[in-house]
Amino acid sequence: MPHERLRLLLLLLLRVTLAKRAVAEAIGTALLLAAVVGSGIMAERLSGGNVAIALLANTLATGGVLAAIILTFQGISGAHFNPAVTLAVAFRGEFAWREVPAYIVGQLVGALVGVGLANAMFAKPLFFASHHARHGFPVLLSEFVATFGLLAVIWGCVRSRKEAIPYAVAAYIMGAYWFTASTSFANPAVTIARSLSDTFAGIAPSDVVGFIAMELLGALAATVLFKWLLR
Amino acid sequence: MPHERLRLLLLLLLRVTLAKRAVAEAIGTALLLAAVVGSGIMAERLSGGNVAIALLANTLATGGVLAAIILTFQGISGAHFNPAVTLAVAFRGEFAWREVPAYIVGQLVGALVGVGLANAMFAKPLFFASHHARHGFPVLLSEFVATFGLLAVIWGCVRSRKEAIPYAVAAYIMGAYWFTASTSFANPAVTIARSLSDTFAGIAPSDVVGFIAMELLGALAATVLFKWLLR
Amino acid sequence: MPHERLRLLLLLLLRVTLAKRAVAEAIGTALLLAAVVGSGIMAERLSGGNVAIALLANTLATGGVLAAIILTFQGISGAHFNPAVTLAVAFRGEFAWREVPAYIVGQLVGALVGVGLANAMFAKPLFFASHHARHGFPVLLSEFVATFGLLAVIWGCVRSRKEAIPYAVAAYIMGAYWFTASTSFANPAVTIARSLSDTFAGIAPSDVVGFIAMELLGALAATVLFKWLLR
Amino acid sequence: MPHERLRLLLLLLLRVTLAKRAVAEAIGTALLLAAVVGSGIMAERLSGGNVAIALLANTLATGGVLAAIILTFQGISGAHFNPAVTLAVAFRGEFAWREVPAYIVGQLVGALVGVGLANAMFAKPLFFASHHARHGFPVLLSEFVATFGLLAVIWGCVRSRKEAIPYAVAAYIMGAYWFTASTSFANPAVTIARSLSDTFAGIAPSDVVGFIAMELLGALAATVLFKWLLR
Repeated sequence: MPHERLRLLLLLLLRVTLAKRAVAEAIGTALLLAAVVGSGIMAERLSGGNVAIALLANTLATGGVLAAIILTFQGISGAHFNPAVTLAVAFRGEFAWREVPAYIVGQLVGALVGVGLANAMFAKPLFFASHHARHGFPVLLSEFVATFGLLAVIWGCVRSRKEAIPYAVAAYIMGAYWFTASTSFANPAVTIARSLSDTFAGIAPSDVVGFIAMELLGALAATVLFKWLLR
Repeated sequence: MPHERLRLLLLLLLRVTLAKRAVAEAIGTALLLAAVVGSGIMAERLSGGNVAIALLANTLATGGVLAAIILTFQGISGAHFNPAVTLAVAFRGEFAWREVPAYIVGQLVGALVGVGLANAMFAKPLFFASHHARHGFPVLLSEFVATFGLLAVIWGCVRSRKEAIPYAVAAYIMGAYWFTASTSFANPAVTIARSLSDTFAGIAPSDVVGFIAMELLGALAATVLFKWLLR
Repeated sequence: MPHERLRLLLLLLLRVTLAKRAVAEAIGTALLLAAVVGSGIMAERLSGGNVAIALLANTLATGGVLAAIILTFQGISGAHFNPAVTLAVAFRGEFAWREVPAYIVGQLVGALVGVGLANAMFAKPLFFASHHARHGFPVLLSEFVATFGLLAVIWGCVRSRKEAIPYAVAAYIMGAYWFTASTSFANPAVTIARSLSDTFAGIAPSDVVGFIAMELLGALAATVLFKWLLR
Repeated sequence: MPHERLRLLLLLLLRVTLAKRAVAEAIGTALLLAAVVGSGIMAERLSGGNVAIALLANTLATGGVLAAIILTFQGISGAHFNPAVTLAVAFRGEFAWREVPAYIVGQLVGALVGVGLANAMFAKPLFFASHHARHGFPVLLSEFVATFGLLAVIWGCVRSRKEAIPYAVAAYIMGAYWFTASTSFANPAVTIARSLSDTFAGIAPSDVVGFIAMELLGALAATVLFKWLLR
């Protein structure tokens, strides 16, 4: 049955044009960012100053929406929602390089729309720069580890249990919110978009480049390691 | 196997008369409302004034019961529990219009029974109007986004991974409780019924119409978009 | 595949003698009670007086262990762990009446062992009567609703998606802990055993009979209703 | 399909050399320890002194990462991450004794790397001995029960529903964090590594031997019992 489902997914993918798949990436990434930023605002507003309770709520909301949107879009666009994932899959030759720009543009546009929606749903300015400082060696190491782990989970599951990826990725990210000092952004599009909301989930624009560099390094390390491991 | 299971579900559906399916919708919706309203009362009672803790409990209870009742009734009635879903499925031609009234009546009756049960289990009046004001642009936008996302999840999953819908919908709603300013009612029957309990999960009767309008618009938008996306 | 798995389960069941299956029921019920009572003690000890936080932890622990033990024992004994379930299944003719006593004895012995283990793990007396009063109409109605819902979930899933029962039951009970005023015992063996620990999850011995009566009534109502619904 | 998947897993295993599988055990165990220790530090830092909230976060993070890494590595190394599991599987004749040392070395090295990473991500010394006393009869009994339950779950699931093991083990451990007085280490490699971080999840080095002894006894008891139960 996994074979049959894979074949069905493949047929579906071939029938869905690149434009539609890029739109799917945009919708999914918009819902992801709305969830991350919106639940951060709600959590901070309600938690009476206990940051652990706020982060628990933020974790639950992110995990729930992540599982739901990967289940929703895996059969349409592959449900990357993450330039690091798109680049890693292309790097391994399992995704056409010529389709990478459309995917990344879709992810970035979707991420911005999602943050704007979250801000609007909570009566904030559509976009306003974050002042949340996130830098220093521990935080940068955290982003490396977080994205290494994310790609490890994806590469480990993609061959033998592709249908479990929605649950595996959501479960991993829920854990990674807590075991990394950076709360595990692990996604360049998410990192850029989160700089545009000065709320719980924000990141100061000046810290964005360092995060993205470590995310790409972490993704590369896991991709190279699993290429050897699964050869 | 998805084909075989779909066929089995179809055969089962054909053998279950409309009356039984409407009763199934009523029971499921009653359990859903009992969960939403009852856990809200319990959560507010125990949480010592920390609204984030109360909403976490309300989220967990809603998500748990939602997954359980969709698993329970998906093979009997399709497990809509939501007029917006019934209308959207009929709009797409995958549900007979002549069966829509029975489903919606079942959902409404069930929702009222569920709220009455929750109120009775916590020694409240069977029905008493809520004073919880929920209006304004951010909240209305929230209901649009919440229901758009719910239908997106349903349309995305229904073709290639119908068996994952119980988990996808529950996970999505758990997230949406936190990332929307309205705590994501996303269901006209739920909205009406929640106006009849002046407790944590209530909504003032005067705000009901606005909620339902945005829910139907959100459902329509997602349905049209996914019709194009999956064509 | 569901057919093949059902056949495998059946073959397995036939090869496992009644004695072994009763022991399996005892081990599973012991782990369930250890989880319910033990996590209640730990939760109350750590939560600094916030009952909602304590019940959240109790809910998570119960749900986790419930899913795990049903997955573990479903292929061995059917994973009832509950006299109301055993009686309901026998009532519907899907379980031999002559095997009912062994199952219920196994469940009762296991429940007592589990409570004793929980008490011992937290340095309490092995058994000591609870003073936690749980009576009155709202609480009794709650036990009826809780057990009705539990059996509804079981009957709804058992035909078309038996493999999802572990998740459905755990998710339902996690919700029911919050949406019923009784925190949803929904199990006569659990009810009896919980009277023997004067801790968070306890119930005064004098309230046990009322609980069990409502649990059996709720189970009967759901069983009769679903017999009609699924005919 | 379970048969087909089992066969695929077997073929995969045969093609993956022992060295690669030991590396897989190391990576997985490193992620597990990073999750346990790192989320403990984060949780204690944010929870404002409420230990129940801290343990809830620690539980969620451990469960999420555990599910994710078993899904990731089950098809590569079997995803033991635990010397007690490796020994139990070898004891039952389902794993070659000559491969046990490589697995345990991989698990120990990975566990140390994971603790070092967690400490580094939170700007602590790479390794520093814990002062968290964990001894006495209740705590030792707890480790016996915790590991008994873990192996029961594994043996119960491994034959009829191997693909559910990631969810069953994660759900069980999330429960066991709360229903045992020791917070359920249930893993000798984890126990040793956690002695090297003087933070929330630590254990004093002098208490390590007692824990490991009870873990091995618990694993042995469950393995012998299930050998009889499943014969």
